[in-house]
Amino acid sequence: MSQNLETYAVELAQAARAASRKLAVSSGKQRTEAVRAMAAALRERAAHIVAENARDLAAAQENGLTSAMIDRLRLDEARIEKMARAVEEVAEQVDPVGQTIDGWMRPNGLRIEKRRVPIGVVAIIYEARPNVTSDAASLCIKSGNACILRGGKESFHSNMAIGSVIAGALEKAGLPAASVQIVNTTDRELVPILLRQDQYIDLVIPRGGESLIRAVVEASRIPVIKHYTGNCHVYVDKDCPLELAETIILNAKCQRPGVCNAAESLLFHRNVADQFIPVIGRKLIEAGVEIRGDARTCALLPEAKPAQESDLYAEYLDLIISCSVVDTLEQAIEHINKYGSHHTDAILTRDITAAEAFCAGVDSGNVMVNASTRFSDGGEYGLGAEIGISTDKLHSRGPMGAQDLTTYKWIVTGNGHIRT
Amino acid sequence: MSQNLETYAVELAQAARAASRKLAVSSGKQRTEAVRAMAAALRERAAHIVAENARDLAAAQENGLTSAMIDRLRLDEARIEKMARAVEEVAEQVDPVGQTIDGWMRPNGLRIEKRRVPIGVVAIIYEARPNVTSDAASLCIKSGNACILRGGKESFHSNMAIGSVIAGALEKAGLPAASVQIVNTTDRELVPILLRQDQYIDLVIPRGGESLIRAVVEASRIPVIKHYTGNCHVYVDKDCPLELAETIILNAKCQRPGVCNAAESLLFHRNVADQFIPVIGRKLIEAGVEIRGDARTCALLPEAKPAQESDLYAEYLDLIISCSVVDTLEQAIEHINKYGSHHTDAILTRDITAAEAFCAGVDSGNVMVNASTRFSDGGEYGLGAEIGISTDKLHSRGPMGAQDLTTYKWIVTGNGHIRT
Repeated sequence: MSQNLETYAVELAQAARAASRKLAVSSGKQRTEAVRAMAAALRERAAHIVAENARDLAAAQENGLTSAMIDRLRLDEARIEKMARAVEEVAEQVDPVGQTIDGWMRPNGLRIEKRRVPIGVVAIIYEARPNVTSDAASLCIKSGNACILRGGKESFHSNMAIGSVIAGALEKAGLPAASVQIVNTTDRELVPILLRQDQYIDLVIPRGGESLIRAVVEASRIPVIKHYTGNCHVYVDKDCPLELAETIILNAKCQRPGVCNAAESLLFHRNVADQFIPVIGRKLIEAGVEIRGDARTCALLPEAKPAQESDLYAEYLDLIISCSVVDTLEQAIEHINKYGSHHTDAILTRDITAAEAFCAGVDSGNVMVNASTRFSDGGEYGLGAEIGISTDKLHSRGPMGAQDLTTYKWIVTGNGHIRT
Repeated sequence: MSQNLETYAVELAQAARAASRKLAVSSGKQRTEAVRAMAAALRERAAHIVAENARDLAAAQENGLTSAMIDRLRLDEARIEKMARAVEEVAEQVDPVGQTIDGWMRPNGLRIEKRRVPIGVVAIIYEARPNVTSDAASLCIKSGNACILRGGKESFHSNMAIGSVIAGALEKAGLPAASVQIVNTTDRELVPILLRQDQYIDLVIPRGGESLIRAVVEASRIPVIKHYTGNCHVYVDKDCPLELAETIILNAKCQRPGVCNAAESLLFHRNVADQFIPVIGRKLIEAGVEIRGDARTCALLPEAKPAQESDLYAEYLDLIISCSVVDTLEQAIEHINKYGSHHTDAILTRDITAAEAFCAGVDSGNVMVNASTRFSDGGEYGLGAEIGISTDKLHSRGPMGAQDLTTYKWIVTGNGHIRT
């Protein structure tokens, strides 16, 4: 059995590598048409996808999944139409492959060029809704990468159906069907075996809960790009109008508390704490938010619960927020760099110098100035669909679009140049 | 003892992280002046460095190092002057930090910007000559990174002397001395402990032989950028003049055979094999090169030895080269992708279409068109000193300069923008 999984993992990986060689020399037109064909095929085969999705829904009900989880899993014509539109948006993006990123002529006449090329083979391990399957496939094909997709067992039949629809579209467009492969087993033993195929797979992107991501990092011999958690801060500087702070904090915390770019920690400069914390604190409480404050916050807002140090590190994903008072901007930066998760942190200020210092000092992938942390998102940045979010520092940071699935090559053109 | 090493590794890493926070908010002027001050200090303290280097030379003689190795180790006034000049060249480069890489305005008025920032803390584990110490320190400071440098035990006293000179220059320029730290022990047990400090160190760059690099990759919890070997190919296309092939092949193989960008494998299109292999083969043999050929090569050049399949993978670093005949350009690309090391591969051709197909199809960090593989080098590309060469695909590929020691941040500026 384990031998079979080993064989299957190597077959998947080798087929993906072979497909990636063809994708690397395909034209942008071909890749764009393939992605468009995916969207068309999703629409045409919607009934089939819905039927297969029904099998997942039945199993979910049998296994006692919550109604919220079952709703996330459910596909209907309208949701498939939405998936198809997202795929079309990816198709219409500028082709990142072949772009000259940089280039110059050396004094000896040698032409140096950095040209954008696909990474090669990308594996995506995810738990989320079945639309990730079509999003990931379209981003990979658009950027010239073969991919291996391993979704959650809850959406197995839906993913297999979407995968077969995509494979048909790829072949119609003259690209190898193995450009997008869906792992055809829910056996959890396969994942660590797949993660050792560093000879064939160039990059792994895990998407899901922290435990899934840690397990992937632990088992992988292939480079992983990831984010574990989002403990996003909103820092209210001394030079900030109350209304600005109130509007943004309520949005960052309450608009969708269960996602990684929701605010989890508030910091107030001491000059505004007395005035702002009681007002904003009560608005948050009215909105159903539990506030866990440091001693100064609790003194200003008796309704707040005292925070433990663990609260300063927490990603609640819920209507809870920690709140602290700092004496200086520098203290706010230090606090964020110590307790934060390097995901997204905001400063609210009218002071350009403070904003610049915050942007330079905070060691996070995304820094917001006078905007809600909730904007930290590939769609909101205009990247189209996103393949993931990185809190790593290498290769890509923040929301990752098609361009983040590319690397570059140095192309050096001479005319018989030799080194002396 | 191991407890002491653990404590020391954590101290080094924490001090580097603290220094990196200061560097992140330092001005480009300050960093440039610090690098200039390093160069000046190297010149001023040359006598001290030479005296400390003499201790390494004495130990080297005692330990029976070859005279070539001892010569590589030796520092004199002229070599220190060369080191100082290399550091000055880095100082005069354009500051990569703070550059806007990309940016746009969203329809809702949100300004999105990708801004280049330092990576943070870089550890460099190397075996090579003491000039790597000053090169690496200058590139890291120029790009706003703190670094931990761990050189070979043969150059321990030289590196410590260079390190103390650099620390003085940093303090003079108002930057933390811990921005550049030289590991003060030759105990090999320290390295794996250091490589587990992923909480404080962002990137590891190993430089040296393949076994050193493999040991670093195996032990590291921190992302590593590296290259193992350079099996560089020169492919002679059917549309290539004999003289062009002869000149470049001799240069790529013989100009400096012991380095990673020297050619190790030749491929000839069958249309030119009959004419070219006997002529170029004999020129190589005259230059002292041993040729290991496939059956078709050996038939055309009886002086060649038959190649084993292992020869096709080999990085000889010596006056030996493998030689094969291919039927098509596609076969050449397949051969390179199978046997190569993704370092540097060249096509020699007059045919633009063939050159483009080769550039797209060969999965290597550097592709040369009508130029010697020996140009694959940071200095030759105009990057100034290089911190290393990457055959990885993520983050950086090929020669790495100061810019490759940066990442980016998304800076999003609004005016009270909330997500709805």
